[in-house]
Amino acid sequence: MNFELSDKAKKYKEELIAFMDTHIYPIEHEVELYYARNPKKLHPSIEPLKEKAREQGLWNLFLPLDYAEHTGGLTNLEYAVLAEEMGKIMWASEIFNCNAPDTGNMEVLAKYGSEKQKETYLLPMLEGRIRSAFLMTEPSVASSDARNIETSIVRDGDSYLINGRKWWSSNVRHPNCSFYIVMGKTDTSASSYTQQSMIIIPTKTEGVEVVRDLSAMGQFDFPSAHCEVLLHNVRVPAENIILGEGKGFEIAQGRLGPGRIHHAMRSIGAAQRAFDYMCKRVNERTAFGKPYHEMGSIREKTAKIFCAIEKCRMLTLKTAYMVDTLGAKGAKDYIAALKISVIPEASRIIDECMQVFGGKGMSTDIPLAAMYSHWRAMRIADGPEEVHAYQLGRNLLKKARDRKQTDIRYFVD
Amino acid sequence: MNFELSDKAKKYKEELIAFMDTHIYPIEHEVELYYARNPKKLHPSIEPLKEKAREQGLWNLFLPLDYAEHTGGLTNLEYAVLAEEMGKIMWASEIFNCNAPDTGNMEVLAKYGSEKQKETYLLPMLEGRIRSAFLMTEPSVASSDARNIETSIVRDGDSYLINGRKWWSSNVRHPNCSFYIVMGKTDTSASSYTQQSMIIIPTKTEGVEVVRDLSAMGQFDFPSAHCEVLLHNVRVPAENIILGEGKGFEIAQGRLGPGRIHHAMRSIGAAQRAFDYMCKRVNERTAFGKPYHEMGSIREKTAKIFCAIEKCRMLTLKTAYMVDTLGAKGAKDYIAALKISVIPEASRIIDECMQVFGGKGMSTDIPLAAMYSHWRAMRIADGPEEVHAYQLGRNLLKKARDRKQTDIRYFVD
Amino acid sequence: MNFELSDKAKKYKEELIAFMDTHIYPIEHEVELYYARNPKKLHPSIEPLKEKAREQGLWNLFLPLDYAEHTGGLTNLEYAVLAEEMGKIMWASEIFNCNAPDTGNMEVLAKYGSEKQKETYLLPMLEGRIRSAFLMTEPSVASSDARNIETSIVRDGDSYLINGRKWWSSNVRHPNCSFYIVMGKTDTSASSYTQQSMIIIPTKTEGVEVVRDLSAMGQFDFPSAHCEVLLHNVRVPAENIILGEGKGFEIAQGRLGPGRIHHAMRSIGAAQRAFDYMCKRVNERTAFGKPYHEMGSIREKTAKIFCAIEKCRMLTLKTAYMVDTLGAKGAKDYIAALKISVIPEASRIIDECMQVFGGKGMSTDIPLAAMYSHWRAMRIADGPEEVHAYQLGRNLLKKARDRKQTDIRYFVD
Amino acid sequence: MNFELSDKAKKYKEELIAFMDTHIYPIEHEVELYYARNPKKLHPSIEPLKEKAREQGLWNLFLPLDYAEHTGGLTNLEYAVLAEEMGKIMWASEIFNCNAPDTGNMEVLAKYGSEKQKETYLLPMLEGRIRSAFLMTEPSVASSDARNIETSIVRDGDSYLINGRKWWSSNVRHPNCSFYIVMGKTDTSASSYTQQSMIIIPTKTEGVEVVRDLSAMGQFDFPSAHCEVLLHNVRVPAENIILGEGKGFEIAQGRLGPGRIHHAMRSIGAAQRAFDYMCKRVNERTAFGKPYHEMGSIREKTAKIFCAIEKCRMLTLKTAYMVDTLGAKGAKDYIAALKISVIPEASRIIDECMQVFGGKGMSTDIPLAAMYSHWRAMRIADGPEEVHAYQLGRNLLKKARDRKQTDIRYFVD
Repeated sequence: MNFELSDKAKKYKEELIAFMDTHIYPIEHEVELYYARNPKKLHPSIEPLKEKAREQGLWNLFLPLDYAEHTGGLTNLEYAVLAEEMGKIMWASEIFNCNAPDTGNMEVLAKYGSEKQKETYLLPMLEGRIRSAFLMTEPSVASSDARNIETSIVRDGDSYLINGRKWWSSNVRHPNCSFYIVMGKTDTSASSYTQQSMIIIPTKTEGVEVVRDLSAMGQFDFPSAHCEVLLHNVRVPAENIILGEGKGFEIAQGRLGPGRIHHAMRSIGAAQRAFDYMCKRVNERTAFGKPYHEMGSIREKTAKIFCAIEKCRMLTLKTAYMVDTLGAKGAKDYIAALKISVIPEASRIIDECMQVFGGKGMSTDIPLAAMYSHWRAMRIADGPEEVHAYQLGRNLLKKARDRKQTDIRYFVD
Repeated sequence: MNFELSDKAKKYKEELIAFMDTHIYPIEHEVELYYARNPKKLHPSIEPLKEKAREQGLWNLFLPLDYAEHTGGLTNLEYAVLAEEMGKIMWASEIFNCNAPDTGNMEVLAKYGSEKQKETYLLPMLEGRIRSAFLMTEPSVASSDARNIETSIVRDGDSYLINGRKWWSSNVRHPNCSFYIVMGKTDTSASSYTQQSMIIIPTKTEGVEVVRDLSAMGQFDFPSAHCEVLLHNVRVPAENIILGEGKGFEIAQGRLGPGRIHHAMRSIGAAQRAFDYMCKRVNERTAFGKPYHEMGSIREKTAKIFCAIEKCRMLTLKTAYMVDTLGAKGAKDYIAALKISVIPEASRIIDECMQVFGGKGMSTDIPLAAMYSHWRAMRIADGPEEVHAYQLGRNLLKKARDRKQTDIRYFVD
Repeated sequence: MNFELSDKAKKYKEELIAFMDTHIYPIEHEVELYYARNPKKLHPSIEPLKEKAREQGLWNLFLPLDYAEHTGGLTNLEYAVLAEEMGKIMWASEIFNCNAPDTGNMEVLAKYGSEKQKETYLLPMLEGRIRSAFLMTEPSVASSDARNIETSIVRDGDSYLINGRKWWSSNVRHPNCSFYIVMGKTDTSASSYTQQSMIIIPTKTEGVEVVRDLSAMGQFDFPSAHCEVLLHNVRVPAENIILGEGKGFEIAQGRLGPGRIHHAMRSIGAAQRAFDYMCKRVNERTAFGKPYHEMGSIREKTAKIFCAIEKCRMLTLKTAYMVDTLGAKGAKDYIAALKISVIPEASRIIDECMQVFGGKGMSTDIPLAAMYSHWRAMRIADGPEEVHAYQLGRNLLKKARDRKQTDIRYFVD
Repeated sequence: MNFELSDKAKKYKEELIAFMDTHIYPIEHEVELYYARNPKKLHPSIEPLKEKAREQGLWNLFLPLDYAEHTGGLTNLEYAVLAEEMGKIMWASEIFNCNAPDTGNMEVLAKYGSEKQKETYLLPMLEGRIRSAFLMTEPSVASSDARNIETSIVRDGDSYLINGRKWWSSNVRHPNCSFYIVMGKTDTSASSYTQQSMIIIPTKTEGVEVVRDLSAMGQFDFPSAHCEVLLHNVRVPAENIILGEGKGFEIAQGRLGPGRIHHAMRSIGAAQRAFDYMCKRVNERTAFGKPYHEMGSIREKTAKIFCAIEKCRMLTLKTAYMVDTLGAKGAKDYIAALKISVIPEASRIIDECMQVFGGKGMSTDIPLAAMYSHWRAMRIADGPEEVHAYQLGRNLLKKARDRKQTDIRYFVD
């Protein structure tokens, strides 16, 4: 297990931090207040900043090595370190074309898309010209079990007809959002995991209705806002299917792996930033005649948060390393571990740091309440942690049964 | 320790539940969506409902027995049971004229107000005609330590001049809000706890500026919204001082006791309602081929939440009983206990129940996310739980030192 | 809900505390050291102390009102308060003839025993002349599920032949132990819960072999030590069956209720005593130039433990009250709650108090380590808390389904 | 950060596992039962096994590279992997001459000892011929604060006179124990951290009295048992002082670092083994008609323990790496982190695994109860975790103050 960064990755890290220090931190608060007032418009600095980032090569860094012409050619481990930095600001990833769900969609198209799909959808995404959404979750079923999906994708001549209701679809409100990747069922009589397919629906297609904006824990998360989308007799050409009928579950499995580790990486950055904020507060504030930083309970809390962040970070690095060396499939236990014990922990840490600020912590004067709401909601996105824990437990116990047990290692029984 | 309800209290409880079932639950969701869209207007049903509640005598139930002409004449214990019911809906207390901070302000005026103050401010509040705010917390100091308060109240002839900046002042945006009770310092050279005074400022006084609305965990909590208020050379007649100069700390102590137990009572109702929601969901939903209610981990979770709620409820009842029998001062250890281990626990319980709903839990389709945000923020209001734990620990250890220790009860040393 | 003690109960409480102060606390440490050195002998003070307690009427206080000639005629609620006091010392209950498993066995015989069984076994137990064991748990199956029990009780003419292996049988090493009540199966073809029967086996019967002593968490808990017992073709007269064949499960259900609440009551006493020890230490010790009691983290810890004990105590009182008013069956949800959230919590509290003592806490110089081990093991006795949580969750969710849901109380869906 | 093992380390690991599989696991239970019956004698297999391990070069692996002639020349990181394996069995480290407190004492003598001390004490220890104890903790003061130490070391001509009382001195009962390193004060008028000195006392010196054996959480931990030792006018030659008067604190700091990470490494092995035991049980047991491994709550528990162990392991590896690259001083924050969040976590994990076994878990039929007691006690050894958390928090906050804060990274204030 080698976590050394290449010189290239170190250089990226330095440049990324410098870019954020120069261009992003100074306008962070202003941008967040802007979205509170202008929820459906991009802040005017966003596109220029993306242009600048792209010029400097701080662009598409998340993309696996195989697509090296579009990316910096970094390993997942190396990207983890950069994603942590991006995670310190809620909206920073997009500046570097590294934001979900676009990253996952780009990976899907890069891995499974036809040449035409790549040209029409992937290329402009890689260039940052368009955005996309991923329509997976449905309001009426437990969507973390793909077998429950109810949206139908029915072949009709040279096209498909799509009907269904989706929600928590991020990016739908983004002014540049130009297509959705939709998960549905093409064949409800097939075996459980070959009923599903994925298909591309351009945003402007007839029958697509954005029903409403959804707030997650009171946050609308503009501009990438989550929406409920109704698909009513939506018709798209047959060529819009990705990889072929019945491949939806397979693609979904491939899609979730890296995305999930990106989330975890960013959550470390968010937790670290909350901790930095907390330390700053503790070093400045006094109550009951004593500086906070001399209070024993605050010192203990500080120490415990440091330990918790370090543990999360190390587990995330290991997981990235496992994905690099064994592939997403080989690393699936660790990918699940991030969902179970990194994202909830990051959310908990942000909450604890926020508490130290009293009323200010609850407000928008510092970014912690918004960060908390975001990461609390992330405990649900991609399936609640309980589902991942259930499955990981099942897999680990299965492995334990399969393993040749050296009985000598156990006492009686 | 006797927790039996009087027949009168039982009757109130039945009537309150019936009232809520008939008039409040049916419009709960509509009202909450209304405030999301019309943040600064009262929902048109509110005033008529208050009228109806008042007619039925479901009114001012929180008020201690001493003010029996205005109230049902209930003990704190009896009120606790009613407050739990009110706590099931975020905005229900106001319908019964039992909402913070008006309740606290009414108690202050009833206990410490001059005849004129009672006539001008208390009476219309008891009749529900006006609302009020309590301006205590300041953005630049740790206000849970009253010694830090910076707002100045300076005698100038027949009036006082007030200067300061307050925030988290609830009710300020309420259309009927007509005065503030403000905590400030009249004499910074006096001993630590006699520097503070409380004074009444009518809302329309010159120099009062409502600077901005504050969101708490992403919620604006309209119509009682929390605001930041600037007081710049605000002049009020000298008679507006409550009880006299230097009495601010004493009044604050008296004020917080009952209010804090009201919050705790309501938090039990909120937790119970979240639990009822969760049970309903669990009994309706299926995933991975299995009804939720047959899943072992969900059954364990259900059992643990039941236990947690019961414990919180019992501690709250005991505290109310202690206040009834020993007074707020004699019960202060228990009052602190509610802040330390009931409100945070209620907040945690709501969070756990919410988790079972997946995406819906984060949304406004059910009230849990809003409830969570509210109760999370309540861990800060009236001073963060850490401050209460620190003080309670100090008091308990002091008592242990004072207690005659029967040495026979300890081994060696 | 009325938790007032009768004058009689108050008097018992005073006398019990006085008795313990005079006779038990002063020799507590000596007795515990004695058992460490003389594991299989009764400490010479035990029988005289029992005599004295019996003379003073501090005797059989646990027994329900129905057996008033043998007891003080206390409610479960009233006994709870006394049991808490007894729980402060590991071996105090026996002095008052109130120790498990004798209490449960006495209840079984009083409720279900034949006249002859009462005369032969119950009467001398009520007088404290003999002790007994309860042989339920088996090493090779999950015995918390009574259907798994493998011990066979086979009718053979005028007698029964018993074969099986039991463990964790307390009191077996007690010098006065004179019989066992054994759970086994008389008919493996009957329906699940009518296969089991209970039978009395006198200690000296041929075929009874005490295989070994078991330590629980390193403690042998002499003199009531837990043992493994082999029953090999043990023959007893047919009249030794209790209540009749197939009644074992029914008796077991009846037996566990009160016993479990006795354990919980005592666990509060243990937790309270650990807390008293901790407060004493904190008030005496200094480190890093500061008395412990001035340290913020210790103050917070003190406050939180106080709250936790109060919550456990109140839940236990409520449960006792429920048993008094609804019977053990009507109170079963609450009885389960004690197992789930009082005993584990008491064990956790003792652990936290112990931590404050550093090395001394781990030692036998104070009783906390032994108390911890005992209460940790009690999380397993009568079935692990997980089993109770599983069943309680199932029951609560079933009740929620059965309850007429006022749909008006829920939003969407 | 590179966690790759050298080929040499990999080979050691393979050989160590093979050695344990062949020679240690098969007799583990027998040895533990032996010590329960023969507490003060070495099990007859121990010395022959040590001989065998030494022949195979599985010897002194803990020793830093600087003493390469005596060791395998491993980094701390590489040793961590081996120590984890040794930690799976309570008494395995000694077989490889890698057990505390001998390791710490060997390091002290290697780093700070005079030539004569090395020859007389270090050499035979390196060869495994003698054992030693470290007398630090005192019963009457909070010894985690070295300033509190009361033992006196007074120069008297060519010798020192030592008086004091020590406890929790491990190895004192070991049949081969031949000397103690004792911490005391040579000059109570010097500055706080130069009052302390360390001195060597041969076991047989007049005035040394082993007062009693101490059980830690009910375990006597033979043969290395913890004892209370009285030093009464003990006289040793002046040359027995280590490094010189006033150097005690400095040596103690150096001593604790590596020892603490060894403990943490071993605790990972203990937690992993408890987890392996749990998985085995879960895969074999059935209750309520269902194999444990199909139960949702057990699957979730399994997943969470896996995550917790992985996090602890990764933090331990990082710390070892930090010690390798920055030295114990440079790595002190991480060394503290192990004490705060690895050892208590390992103890908690063992407890959770034990719970799954019901009664068997509490017994000596599997090693988990003994492991739990050991690791619970280790939360106290070398200073309770609270002390480390307090100090780590202080250091981190100090660093935060010293760090040049980029103000741009914070919002308002």
